[in-house]
Amino acid sequence: MMSYRFKGIFTPLTTPYGDDHISPEKLKENIEKYNVFDLSGYVVLGSTGESVFLSDMESEELVKTAKKAAASDKTIIAGTAKESTQLTLEFTNRMANEGADTALIRTPSYMKSLMDEEALRSYFLTIADSSKIPIIIYHIPRSTGLTISSKLIADLSEHPNIAGLKDSSGNVAFLGETIPQLHTNFDFLLGAASIFLPGLIMGASGGIITLSSIAPSQCLRLFSLYREKKWEEAVNLQFELIPLNKAIIETYGIPATKYALDLLGYHGGPCRPPLRSLDQTGKDDMKTILHKLNLL
Amino acid sequence: MMSYRFKGIFTPLTTPYGDDHISPEKLKENIEKYNVFDLSGYVVLGSTGESVFLSDMESEELVKTAKKAAASDKTIIAGTAKESTQLTLEFTNRMANEGADTALIRTPSYMKSLMDEEALRSYFLTIADSSKIPIIIYHIPRSTGLTISSKLIADLSEHPNIAGLKDSSGNVAFLGETIPQLHTNFDFLLGAASIFLPGLIMGASGGIITLSSIAPSQCLRLFSLYREKKWEEAVNLQFELIPLNKAIIETYGIPATKYALDLLGYHGGPCRPPLRSLDQTGKDDMKTILHKLNLL
Amino acid sequence: MMSYRFKGIFTPLTTPYGDDHISPEKLKENIEKYNVFDLSGYVVLGSTGESVFLSDMESEELVKTAKKAAASDKTIIAGTAKESTQLTLEFTNRMANEGADTALIRTPSYMKSLMDEEALRSYFLTIADSSKIPIIIYHIPRSTGLTISSKLIADLSEHPNIAGLKDSSGNVAFLGETIPQLHTNFDFLLGAASIFLPGLIMGASGGIITLSSIAPSQCLRLFSLYREKKWEEAVNLQFELIPLNKAIIETYGIPATKYALDLLGYHGGPCRPPLRSLDQTGKDDMKTILHKLNLL
Amino acid sequence: MMSYRFKGIFTPLTTPYGDDHISPEKLKENIEKYNVFDLSGYVVLGSTGESVFLSDMESEELVKTAKKAAASDKTIIAGTAKESTQLTLEFTNRMANEGADTALIRTPSYMKSLMDEEALRSYFLTIADSSKIPIIIYHIPRSTGLTISSKLIADLSEHPNIAGLKDSSGNVAFLGETIPQLHTNFDFLLGAASIFLPGLIMGASGGIITLSSIAPSQCLRLFSLYREKKWEEAVNLQFELIPLNKAIIETYGIPATKYALDLLGYHGGPCRPPLRSLDQTGKDDMKTILHKLNLL
Repeated sequence: MMSYRFKGIFTPLTTPYGDDHISPEKLKENIEKYNVFDLSGYVVLGSTGESVFLSDMESEELVKTAKKAAASDKTIIAGTAKESTQLTLEFTNRMANEGADTALIRTPSYMKSLMDEEALRSYFLTIADSSKIPIIIYHIPRSTGLTISSKLIADLSEHPNIAGLKDSSGNVAFLGETIPQLHTNFDFLLGAASIFLPGLIMGASGGIITLSSIAPSQCLRLFSLYREKKWEEAVNLQFELIPLNKAIIETYGIPATKYALDLLGYHGGPCRPPLRSLDQTGKDDMKTILHKLNLL
Repeated sequence: MMSYRFKGIFTPLTTPYGDDHISPEKLKENIEKYNVFDLSGYVVLGSTGESVFLSDMESEELVKTAKKAAASDKTIIAGTAKESTQLTLEFTNRMANEGADTALIRTPSYMKSLMDEEALRSYFLTIADSSKIPIIIYHIPRSTGLTISSKLIADLSEHPNIAGLKDSSGNVAFLGETIPQLHTNFDFLLGAASIFLPGLIMGASGGIITLSSIAPSQCLRLFSLYREKKWEEAVNLQFELIPLNKAIIETYGIPATKYALDLLGYHGGPCRPPLRSLDQTGKDDMKTILHKLNLL
Repeated sequence: MMSYRFKGIFTPLTTPYGDDHISPEKLKENIEKYNVFDLSGYVVLGSTGESVFLSDMESEELVKTAKKAAASDKTIIAGTAKESTQLTLEFTNRMANEGADTALIRTPSYMKSLMDEEALRSYFLTIADSSKIPIIIYHIPRSTGLTISSKLIADLSEHPNIAGLKDSSGNVAFLGETIPQLHTNFDFLLGAASIFLPGLIMGASGGIITLSSIAPSQCLRLFSLYREKKWEEAVNLQFELIPLNKAIIETYGIPATKYALDLLGYHGGPCRPPLRSLDQTGKDDMKTILHKLNLL
Repeated sequence: MMSYRFKGIFTPLTTPYGDDHISPEKLKENIEKYNVFDLSGYVVLGSTGESVFLSDMESEELVKTAKKAAASDKTIIAGTAKESTQLTLEFTNRMANEGADTALIRTPSYMKSLMDEEALRSYFLTIADSSKIPIIIYHIPRSTGLTISSKLIADLSEHPNIAGLKDSSGNVAFLGETIPQLHTNFDFLLGAASIFLPGLIMGASGGIITLSSIAPSQCLRLFSLYREKKWEEAVNLQFELIPLNKAIIETYGIPATKYALDLLGYHGGPCRPPLRSLDQTGKDDMKTILHKLNLL
């Protein structure tokens, strides 16, 4: 049903900082570590990468660095959404020039009540028409307060330059309603690790999941178990991963992801304010969870 | 992991009316039709049964009728929730006397902001202690505006008289977080047909699903395909059932279920006001959907 | 603009219990204390009265007791909502027979998604047509998850047996949109003490406010200051009352109201489970707040 | 209680465009028209100004133009929020250099679940410490999905460089809880015209209200009536303004504001995509509403 151009696991990268500036060097070292895993690609400028906290110059530098550091078979997906059609298109093509292979574009949402079906349709079609690279629609109601209908996704999936959807709604019923309506040239990518296995079974081609930045081999193993139809093992592994995923997504957020990276030998480091560092309870909790998974 | 005391598919019954009163005769005839299917039991006084619109006397009559009409291997589950601990307990035991095998008890919610973890815990434990029949907790945030935590479900699952959970949240991540924590003597029952297959794969023992009142053989076939590990067929059938389920749950509600029953030779009939009858658009839409599924 | 049939302050009564049963005797004593104040009437079977926790028999007894104990110039308003049109109408007339002067009827909400404009319109019109006593529509989105439009309120205000609206939305803009559209024979009653003064200024005729069960003279004084156009004093008193109101409505709920009543010499007592008693922090907090207002 | 440094009515300016670029010339002409009214100042780069759709260069140009075109007694308030502390501070000082007198800074919200009390406190304090111009906190839960507590506002009001709050919550109870706690050097400005009069009565010093861009003299007259204590006339005028305000804020948004401006001889023009132009129904509706107010 899917094109499976975007298959497997894509890892959203965190953004490491130096003093007051992003650190391309640390990003490079992180990516080199990830390169040894069978990950399908990396996302720069995603939510996990604190994209809303970065200047356009820093964004350019991150994309350029990621493209250079990534193994040649890894796809570089860049988050390029601004709120207006024009600014998003300009920024998308700018990131394409820096090396992005694909653009991940969140639904605009500041003017929520005016973002009706036609506004969103026109937004994505206009951008897709003139983007130098394929785009993936990003559906994240938790952040945007906005949902997008199955019907609209299905319509947009017909456009040759709209390659897929990253769905972070966590809503398996939405997935079940949407997937049968999609053009074959379009991929459904899961944004919620908590439903990775059921999502794959229902037809998703893979996922863009923050959990894989901390537990890449476990996530890849879950994907393999699914493909080998080892269902029982797969379900058990899915269960095991849920507490870690909940901690980094719901309970503690990006500061916990970065703390875990520090513990695991990557460059995590602090987030930019107004995000705060993980407090001691959070740190202890994260250690316990990582120990249980034998990651520490 | 589950006890599998509550396994397979339980059908929530609609409530047929005569003039100004429930019609036990019509209910009996509906049940006799359902008896030929391999359904595990019936739910009377559920949301689908318009329980909130019924008098206590009518409720008694429905339970008594259902128990008598049901084939002997079918479990009779009765919705017995009132808002207070005392009234719920009294009503539960009254329905037990009329023949209910199990009680389905919705989280109280009128005083939402005061229904914290301890209030809910104490509510269910007190009732479970003195109920003559096992109870199933009913989680339906869409109606109650209240969620219940995995941890609390897990704690309550230890009680020998709390037999399971009916979860209508539709949230597969919640299911994945909850199931591994449950006592082995406790069943997780799906309340959302839209995620029936993924829910089963993740460990649910069955479902209480309104869809099975209209499409019992399709729902039973989906359950069989799951048990026979015919995954591909199962996914396709799950996809096929989603539009019908969406129509009767999200778009049109109980009036659409009853309209479909009328078309299919059961006693559907009108709902009680303030519920209104399905309008012509809804009727046309339902016919189209039922035709596509070869139910008409 | 208003009829001012329902003018001034109506006090929602809490329900005092004996062992396992309501205590009509204690209710009588409470009412006799309230009778000395210039309150316009009492509400029995309101949210504050834990109506959802009471049996129909207890409800009858409470209405009968209230009618008997109330001074002859006080209006007895009874909360009579059930979820169905038929049951609500029956219960309304039953309470009318027990002495209720007016019925307060909450929007039905269990089947939220089906409670559209027409369903609500028909619900209230049907009841108003056959109710022996005038009815007041009760709008409390916080509990029901349902809002009602200004236009519908305006339409319903034309019915001679629909006497008013109790609005607990706390939304002054809604009030400003609604009041100019109302029939002159219809009163807008505030259900939120936090906006009592601004609501009066915008045209409300009075309020049904729980705060007046604890602080009747302060609430009455606020109403007097408003009528005497002593704006500055009125604003200051409104400010002073906000923390107490917040404590009993948002933070602690009915258990705090009853605790305050105990401190003030009324019969407060425990709530029915699943409501819990106020914990020590809540008690200390309530004492501090009551001291600041010189109520203790 | 208030400092009344920010007193009266501040008009959020819409952003007029030429081909693909903002039009400073048209902005200048609009401002020159507004200069004849007794408005206290103008907001550039507000929600109404489509700030999220503008490039930083365009933003600079707008602020510079506004400062130059505004009569010398008008305060120029610029919306300067980005999501990170650092970027917001930089942009604030950049706009200060272009002529902004005050910065209006929305609560960051993309990472909603992590924007707790401490994160928001630190965000505003850090910016206030280093901003060259005073800042006004902008509370708009409708867009951000985030509320801010009275207590935090009160704490922040102590900072000498935090001059006020623009509150677009529309919640008069919040206002009543907050105002008594504020430092005397801090102003509460209303962001919701629907509650302008009740808000002033409760102690707000003025408002930043989009309605005043279409109906400046009516808004100013309402403010005068309030100050002259002509309550009855004031309430009537408040009622009259509510339908227009509802149309431009809730029903149709910025496209309706701009359409009205076109009708009234200002430069309205189109919005930037993904915002769409007002459709014919909306245009007809706006004309009717403007006629009723004798604005056309």
